[in-house]
Amino acid sequence: MNKDELKDMLSKVANGTVSVDEAVGRIQLQPYDDIDIAKIDTNRGVRQGADEVVYGEGKTAEQICKIVSHMLNNNVKSVLVTRMSEEKAKVLGDCVKLFYDPVSRIGIAGETPKKEPCGNIVIATGGTSDIPVAEEAALTAEYYSNKVTRLYDVGVAGVHRLLDNTDLLLNAKVVIAVAGMEGALASVVGGLVDCPVIAVPTSVGYGASFKGLSALLSMLNSCASGVSVVNIDNGFGAGYLASMINRI
Amino acid sequence: MNKDELKDMLSKVANGTVSVDEAVGRIQLQPYDDIDIAKIDTNRGVRQGADEVVYGEGKTAEQICKIVSHMLNNNVKSVLVTRMSEEKAKVLGDCVKLFYDPVSRIGIAGETPKKEPCGNIVIATGGTSDIPVAEEAALTAEYYSNKVTRLYDVGVAGVHRLLDNTDLLLNAKVVIAVAGMEGALASVVGGLVDCPVIAVPTSVGYGASFKGLSALLSMLNSCASGVSVVNIDNGFGAGYLASMINRI
Amino acid sequence: MNKDELKDMLSKVANGTVSVDEAVGRIQLQPYDDIDIAKIDTNRGVRQGADEVVYGEGKTAEQICKIVSHMLNNNVKSVLVTRMSEEKAKVLGDCVKLFYDPVSRIGIAGETPKKEPCGNIVIATGGTSDIPVAEEAALTAEYYSNKVTRLYDVGVAGVHRLLDNTDLLLNAKVVIAVAGMEGALASVVGGLVDCPVIAVPTSVGYGASFKGLSALLSMLNSCASGVSVVNIDNGFGAGYLASMINRI
Amino acid sequence: MNKDELKDMLSKVANGTVSVDEAVGRIQLQPYDDIDIAKIDTNRGVRQGADEVVYGEGKTAEQICKIVSHMLNNNVKSVLVTRMSEEKAKVLGDCVKLFYDPVSRIGIAGETPKKEPCGNIVIATGGTSDIPVAEEAALTAEYYSNKVTRLYDVGVAGVHRLLDNTDLLLNAKVVIAVAGMEGALASVVGGLVDCPVIAVPTSVGYGASFKGLSALLSMLNSCASGVSVVNIDNGFGAGYLASMINRI
Amino acid sequence: MNKDELKDMLSKVANGTVSVDEAVGRIQLQPYDDIDIAKIDTNRGVRQGADEVVYGEGKTAEQICKIVSHMLNNNVKSVLVTRMSEEKAKVLGDCVKLFYDPVSRIGIAGETPKKEPCGNIVIATGGTSDIPVAEEAALTAEYYSNKVTRLYDVGVAGVHRLLDNTDLLLNAKVVIAVAGMEGALASVVGGLVDCPVIAVPTSVGYGASFKGLSALLSMLNSCASGVSVVNIDNGFGAGYLASMINRI
Amino acid sequence: MNKDELKDMLSKVANGTVSVDEAVGRIQLQPYDDIDIAKIDTNRGVRQGADEVVYGEGKTAEQICKIVSHMLNNNVKSVLVTRMSEEKAKVLGDCVKLFYDPVSRIGIAGETPKKEPCGNIVIATGGTSDIPVAEEAALTAEYYSNKVTRLYDVGVAGVHRLLDNTDLLLNAKVVIAVAGMEGALASVVGGLVDCPVIAVPTSVGYGASFKGLSALLSMLNSCASGVSVVNIDNGFGAGYLASMINRI
Amino acid sequence: MNKDELKDMLSKVANGTVSVDEAVGRIQLQPYDDIDIAKIDTNRGVRQGADEVVYGEGKTAEQICKIVSHMLNNNVKSVLVTRMSEEKAKVLGDCVKLFYDPVSRIGIAGETPKKEPCGNIVIATGGTSDIPVAEEAALTAEYYSNKVTRLYDVGVAGVHRLLDNTDLLLNAKVVIAVAGMEGALASVVGGLVDCPVIAVPTSVGYGASFKGLSALLSMLNSCASGVSVVNIDNGFGAGYLASMINRI
Amino acid sequence: MNKDELKDMLSKVANGTVSVDEAVGRIQLQPYDDIDIAKIDTNRGVRQGADEVVYGEGKTAEQICKIVSHMLNNNVKSVLVTRMSEEKAKVLGDCVKLFYDPVSRIGIAGETPKKEPCGNIVIATGGTSDIPVAEEAALTAEYYSNKVTRLYDVGVAGVHRLLDNTDLLLNAKVVIAVAGMEGALASVVGGLVDCPVIAVPTSVGYGASFKGLSALLSMLNSCASGVSVVNIDNGFGAGYLASMINRI
Repeated sequence: MNKDELKDMLSKVANGTVSVDEAVGRIQLQPYDDIDIAKIDTNRGVRQGADEVVYGEGKTAEQICKIVSHMLNNNVKSVLVTRMSEEKAKVLGDCVKLFYDPVSRIGIAGETPKKEPCGNIVIATGGTSDIPVAEEAALTAEYYSNKVTRLYDVGVAGVHRLLDNTDLLLNAKVVIAVAGMEGALASVVGGLVDCPVIAVPTSVGYGASFKGLSALLSMLNSCASGVSVVNIDNGFGAGYLASMINRI
Repeated sequence: MNKDELKDMLSKVANGTVSVDEAVGRIQLQPYDDIDIAKIDTNRGVRQGADEVVYGEGKTAEQICKIVSHMLNNNVKSVLVTRMSEEKAKVLGDCVKLFYDPVSRIGIAGETPKKEPCGNIVIATGGTSDIPVAEEAALTAEYYSNKVTRLYDVGVAGVHRLLDNTDLLLNAKVVIAVAGMEGALASVVGGLVDCPVIAVPTSVGYGASFKGLSALLSMLNSCASGVSVVNIDNGFGAGYLASMINRI
Repeated sequence: MNKDELKDMLSKVANGTVSVDEAVGRIQLQPYDDIDIAKIDTNRGVRQGADEVVYGEGKTAEQICKIVSHMLNNNVKSVLVTRMSEEKAKVLGDCVKLFYDPVSRIGIAGETPKKEPCGNIVIATGGTSDIPVAEEAALTAEYYSNKVTRLYDVGVAGVHRLLDNTDLLLNAKVVIAVAGMEGALASVVGGLVDCPVIAVPTSVGYGASFKGLSALLSMLNSCASGVSVVNIDNGFGAGYLASMINRI
Repeated sequence: MNKDELKDMLSKVANGTVSVDEAVGRIQLQPYDDIDIAKIDTNRGVRQGADEVVYGEGKTAEQICKIVSHMLNNNVKSVLVTRMSEEKAKVLGDCVKLFYDPVSRIGIAGETPKKEPCGNIVIATGGTSDIPVAEEAALTAEYYSNKVTRLYDVGVAGVHRLLDNTDLLLNAKVVIAVAGMEGALASVVGGLVDCPVIAVPTSVGYGASFKGLSALLSMLNSCASGVSVVNIDNGFGAGYLASMINRI
Repeated sequence: MNKDELKDMLSKVANGTVSVDEAVGRIQLQPYDDIDIAKIDTNRGVRQGADEVVYGEGKTAEQICKIVSHMLNNNVKSVLVTRMSEEKAKVLGDCVKLFYDPVSRIGIAGETPKKEPCGNIVIATGGTSDIPVAEEAALTAEYYSNKVTRLYDVGVAGVHRLLDNTDLLLNAKVVIAVAGMEGALASVVGGLVDCPVIAVPTSVGYGASFKGLSALLSMLNSCASGVSVVNIDNGFGAGYLASMINRI
Repeated sequence: MNKDELKDMLSKVANGTVSVDEAVGRIQLQPYDDIDIAKIDTNRGVRQGADEVVYGEGKTAEQICKIVSHMLNNNVKSVLVTRMSEEKAKVLGDCVKLFYDPVSRIGIAGETPKKEPCGNIVIATGGTSDIPVAEEAALTAEYYSNKVTRLYDVGVAGVHRLLDNTDLLLNAKVVIAVAGMEGALASVVGGLVDCPVIAVPTSVGYGASFKGLSALLSMLNSCASGVSVVNIDNGFGAGYLASMINRI
Repeated sequence: MNKDELKDMLSKVANGTVSVDEAVGRIQLQPYDDIDIAKIDTNRGVRQGADEVVYGEGKTAEQICKIVSHMLNNNVKSVLVTRMSEEKAKVLGDCVKLFYDPVSRIGIAGETPKKEPCGNIVIATGGTSDIPVAEEAALTAEYYSNKVTRLYDVGVAGVHRLLDNTDLLLNAKVVIAVAGMEGALASVVGGLVDCPVIAVPTSVGYGASFKGLSALLSMLNSCASGVSVVNIDNGFGAGYLASMINRI
Repeated sequence: MNKDELKDMLSKVANGTVSVDEAVGRIQLQPYDDIDIAKIDTNRGVRQGADEVVYGEGKTAEQICKIVSHMLNNNVKSVLVTRMSEEKAKVLGDCVKLFYDPVSRIGIAGETPKKEPCGNIVIATGGTSDIPVAEEAALTAEYYSNKVTRLYDVGVAGVHRLLDNTDLLLNAKVVIAVAGMEGALASVVGGLVDCPVIAVPTSVGYGASFKGLSALLSMLNSCASGVSVVNIDNGFGAGYLASMINRI
């Protein structure tokens, strides 16, 4: 729906040809901005409660700048950019206001949202090497105004480190379990808590971990109930989904 | 039992209000019943809010009967049995009161729970062949007292069938998307709604569907946010998790 | 068949020893030029309606120059070179007249064909990152004198962007659907149109996309009819086939 | 859109509230019949030029009967049913008029279409064992009124059998190449003809053929241009697509 | 026979204490009996400390009888037969004295060994369905005179069932961890004990467990030290190796 | 080339229009008999030195009878049929003279060839379960008049059984090494002999043998020189190739 | 802490010998140090007989320094660091006393242990290229005070090199067999010795070795008894487990 | 040494013609030189008819120099080194006399053998990119004194290029077919010739060629008889085996 069409429809609402409900429906489902290299879903915020996020990996720095600037110039207050290298972040930082975290490779362009964090999302990792993925989840969740509790390096090879934090886990509204290698963390956590567990396999490991496949299969076959899985290394996806559940 | 409760109880041991033996029992993290072929997690209901579920596929009819009877005789009101063949259901039905649904292969032994269903879980399938898995999810969710809305045969090859039910989807608190073949349903649904989507790949398909692998990979790589995945054909897992989220 | 053999056979046609039909058959099936490192199929143009294309990836710049020069010196007006790096393009540009597009990595040596474009091939992509593959298809199709309509970034996670362009799709004689990740675009497009859809999986994605395998399997298992698939990232193959169909 | 809604809209067209164009759009995109176990896409015939086809494998005989009967009772003249076992065909034959072919497992319920066949689709197989898949393609193509030429058992291990039929291949408007094992047929055919080649890998073979995977990969990697691939054993898909191209 | 023994024997040949023929026999590294369908390694007992075991799965009942009878008739006291179906066991029981256990499918022909069991091998399973594999390990270990402690159904989804048995695990000289699905048991056990852990993945599970592949990969990637892995469902291999270690 | 064409060409040879050499060339490359379900390569015997072999697995008993009878009625003395079940053999035995071996599932229709066996092909197996595949190779080689030496059950787990037969191996002109499980036999044999070794992986094994994949990969990666590999369980292929080499 | 010890301690709480706080500390299963980026298992030495090892690959040089320094400052005498690049070793060597071996990439920080080596672990490799993995195993085993015998380049393609060292193998208490490519070494060794064999597949090879997968599958399917497998290239895991067995 | 020879030698020990020490040396199957990093199989030339070849990829330049020098100093006239980079070749060329070919990465240290080439090995490739692998085969075969005929770029997409060279193929004693992508060359060649065909899959291709897997599977499933396969890119293996067969 372009500007003229929007005007047109709203005129019809004004003169009664189109009912308010119908107009709401149309606006909620339709529009986007076509800027040639992308069709920006400008009112996803209305439709899905969260503005479009820019996935930085497959795009050039120039494409990212173009898309982010367009959004900031069109009533979007802040834009989350994921998987953005430091080099690209430098370029983007030169054209818009930018917060950037090199560990998670997450950038926040424009105004960082300042809503009161609510609920409680616990993010646990199997080891130290899983932290970048965990931080991607953490910063995403915090961006969407959730309270986040980090519980890192509690892999099952020393299960007492996990059990010692049972209280912390039991207070979660959602748990994100981030682990590579054999990915057993998700199952053990899933057996301890009574809230949803989002499992994130990571590509940490070597040999027969096959870049995260081992952890992915483990997590899909978890014998614990209440566990679901996102893509390998997909910290953003876990953080976003956790926010959805935590903020219900 | 958190640290404060532990301190509290140990103080009671120190002052004689709680006996040593009682304390030993409580400290042992959680009890279970050992009936030789299984260690039944009898107070999972307390710990996780839902009693232990019996997975019927790897067990003989005799083992199922033994476990279910034991539970019903030990204060468990009803027991959910999944993936139970009609033959095994007949054997089980001879020793305990049993409701059995041959489509989903789900059995409910003892008293069917009669709490008021709450919330709204929409279960969508790509095709008619995905119905058994969807019904496993549906009956599981209903067992845990959730309102379930079925939306079957809305696969993306005729996307208008899905769009025509957008209202229905927008009213969900959680959506379960069940699909085999290319599993695209999860992504399209994920792009329409602003609630969590649990994707269930099914083994429906042939050739390069590789018994559900194609749908599984599709769903893990969904470009829509808010989607997570359970194991191939795992209707129970999806129903259980949906209940967790719906009842928050 | 070398020049002498050709002369010889044509003499036989002249004197009646070989019939015209037989000569046609022999010419259509046989000849090529052997330049040591390659056997150039010089009259593929006669046999298949399109001259031999040079696949640039496995060859050195020197090999490409040698082959292309040989062709241009032997009555081929223009030569399409695919998957040629900028470095190789520079070397080639020094020895023959060359148009080069760095996005698609396509080069056209000699005279760019100037036939009137006909028909209508719509090329749709799931995202911005799929554009290089889509452009390889687009430039190939344009090289063979087809009208091409680009419809980029219409992935299924915001299906309204696609539906909003239904008119455009319905006017296509062939559609090329280019997508990575879960590759669902092909199925949704396949369900909307009544013309052939050529699906091109791309290696865009991460983790369980396994370098395009996820999209490939999705597209092979498409529940929509009229969809067929080419190799991962094979924009050229899709453009060539689309041209064949579009120009029937 | 149900009957009442249709009436209503058409009344609005009649009195000018809805324009003709708008009505066309709505009819073309929307309706289906919801019969509980399935949402039948009753005017796919209008939208895509071919009525919905019933995939028999994942459905019970009862479900097939219910769906087919519903369609025949609602203005669909004939229904194509694929992958239907002889047992199911017997059940279906008891409730509707049915033609059934046990080799391809295809059934045609209602009136067999009797349009004049047009064009020319050549269907080639590598061996005798590929015939069931080839026949699925052939009967599908014939159902949609295409002329079909069968060229069976011309695998590349005796390439003269194929070359001997070059004339036949050169007269095709589309070729369907059906082969298991190493699937080389598609490449050799693709190099001989200048029309589209639809490759169908079959599950014929043993050991490292991995149920058609070997032929599938071969065909996807074909070094010949103009070749695209459908799912393993997907004779119907190939026949349907060939018809689309042949009838352009 | 080491170098010194060889020298010694050859000196005896030189001085006539040992005949040429006898020397020939001894030098040929180790004898075996050739009974046409098999070359029975009759003095593996001398070389490896355990007589040859008969793997029953790939052999006909007749072949098993022939091999076992031959061994019993040639100074072997008892023969362990693994993976023997009940049907084959009946046939074998008709020709030799046989103990047979249908759960593990293990048979012991001839005299059951009666040495005093020593050490302590703990065999833990994730669930009830893993018991057949665990029993194959248990009976093998008992056959070789090891003390075996069974600890079944202690999967990580209810990790307290495992922790409650920490004492039992800490008293083991070797632990065998048998689990399907996500196979996390091996890692958790490996983190608790300070003795070798032999992990046995089982084919228990469905969907993305891919017949044991998921558990196999998990166990190979175990982040706990001291864990090694045998083939999927290879209870015998685990029992045999555990015996080797336990009896050191 | 049909009869008329043959007549025609031979007339041209007779009157000098076609030279003898040209005629030889045409005859050697072209003809086959088209019997509808198959194109029988009737003079493969001339071209390749061995008549066409009938692969029995993908064909019905009726198809086999039709093809074999046609060949025996057209100057082929005997026909080798591979992978033919006992049921099919019964049917075939009713219409033609047939020798059938149930272990290898090989049939020889017509007159068994009675040439003097030459050379020496040694066929070794890892175990007793590999014998059916080995016998398929052995009977094939014997059918083509080669001397065959069987050396069964010499797997590397008791390498002395193999070493004890070094003489036998050193006398081979070709060795066929047949093994499942880890397939190490091929490498050890390859290191002992100085003649070609044809490795045949078998599907014998379980779990991570993945139906012969393990042995196949082992054999392809053999660190011994002179080893090449045929498809899993392809005894015929190995026997045929060994005959080619042995009879050079 | 077993039940009796627990009772005992609680009795002491009841009679005041042990304070409530002290009891709380003891009951919390085992302590660890939380240094933000890691939870260091400081008394794993007590629990498992060996201090925590630092896996260097997924950590930055700074993280390694922080963890190792913390341990050395907290009563750990020496720390084993595995898979540490030369660059990281330089950084670590600047802050703590360090021995570093570039072949195995192993570092030992603090005091190298000086216990008398005991037992005998034989480490055999298939080729020269497997030495880095073998040395990782060797140095690990030596770190834990085991006698190690190296037997390198004895691959099965020249099996006499292995047989010539039979004495050496027969004197082992444990053997570690390290091999890439077809990994047959483990099976041949397993058939020669009567002690446990730990097989380490390496990523040495090319093509169908698929980075160690071929050797891994071979070793898992070993037809020899007493063989178990660790992850691809996991020299440390093999050395650690061998030490456990050797020191029993 | 066969039994008779053994008896003979032992008789000589008995009668004093051969000393005990000498006998010990001879009985130890075959000698090798142990130079710490490798056990060089110095009389493989006697045992297998060809000296040990040095595989350069997994070794450092220093290791290669050490091994090659040792061999040249110990009566080996020339040493073949495969897969040696230009850098390593420079280092080796500084310490021994060396011929090096950068295309195939083959080096020949010492005196190039100068025997008269015999027989005829035809080496065919699918494309220009397969030449490096083909040259590895060609130079290997020439090193072992075989006549080699190169036939490059005759892939099946233009099958007339292959058929045009049928004469050349029919004169071969062995054919090596080198191809990537779909690898169909091996099957077509296999159907044309009556001599052994050694198929070499190459890693040439992209996307679903999966680094040579597609060609490998194709070749293993070849429907032509007389075809066997070596590892992906294993030109040396093919050349060595071809030499064995060609020189029989």
